[in-house]
Amino acid sequence: MSVFFYGCVTLDGYLADRNHGLDWLHQSGTVEETGYEAFYRQMDVTIMGRRTYREIEGLENPAALYPTTENYVFTHAGCGPRAGFRFVRGDVADFVRGLGEEKQIWIIGGNTILSPLLDADLVDCLVIQIAPVLLGAGIPLFTQKEVLRRYRLEGVRQYGQFAELAYRRTT
Amino acid sequence: MSVFFYGCVTLDGYLADRNHGLDWLHQSGTVEETGYEAFYRQMDVTIMGRRTYREIEGLENPAALYPTTENYVFTHAGCGPRAGFRFVRGDVADFVRGLGEEKQIWIIGGNTILSPLLDADLVDCLVIQIAPVLLGAGIPLFTQKEVLRRYRLEGVRQYGQFAELAYRRTT
Repeated sequence: MSVFFYGCVTLDGYLADRNHGLDWLHQSGTVEETGYEAFYRQMDVTIMGRRTYREIEGLENPAALYPTTENYVFTHAGCGPRAGFRFVRGDVADFVRGLGEEKQIWIIGGNTILSPLLDADLVDCLVIQIAPVLLGAGIPLFTQKEVLRRYRLEGVRQYGQFAELAYRRTT
Repeated sequence: MSVFFYGCVTLDGYLADRNHGLDWLHQSGTVEETGYEAFYRQMDVTIMGRRTYREIEGLENPAALYPTTENYVFTHAGCGPRAGFRFVRGDVADFVRGLGEEKQIWIIGGNTILSPLLDADLVDCLVIQIAPVLLGAGIPLFTQKEVLRRYRLEGVRQYGQFAELAYRRTT
């Protein structure tokens, strides 16, 4: 089992503005030239929180975004079935541990999913695209508990106006 | 006048741990191969806060760190003269504006100096080395007010385990 976070933040570390908006992201240029397709092809499972899902549920066919993975949405609210997504609740770390040794798992977001996995030391890789924007307030990516964790920098790349940093856990 | 921030943060955006410690930095490898010398040679003035100064004042000759610049330390406390440093107080943005059009100014840190300059839209360039470490708590680099500010990514480089991102204000 390998757990990946792959996603975009502002230079000051926000996933979204305080209203969960992503206008700053859409105005930062396209990321077409990134390694996203190659990354996604490696994944077996995606996990996201309710707010992240809310960003895509209005699309005509949200499942088309993640066509080849099992897609889980963590939510406290009851949700009816929706093609391509399974709604789950409970402890994220336990859920991830239960997915099996062979799985490649993409944590799409947000911090309520990532943080308990960092706290449980279950995050193997972080691939972060940094947008050239300061917001000054918003939803931070990193809200895990105070523990020093070291990663190994595997590479840096520039895709248009995005800087992509790739990290792997050192132990 | 050009105002630069040039400095190191953790991947989760901290300048230092909650006790203002930098052990995580010293354990992240050397940064000898960075462009620091070339950067420093361009600077005419350095500005730092009292806490940043405290990190170096115990050295035998702290002024040797910044030998060719005018070096200012912002402090509310009274400080006696110290070779190579001038202790100043007041509004950082006004002070910077008063330094003159020709000056290249390095904001060494910390956030109490950088943030009012960001709020006044006086920061021209950000050159940030990201250490491959998560702390989970500490002294954040970015504590400016909520305003969307766009920069242009000028380049990304890897120096050992540090990723360096260079940004210039777009307007």
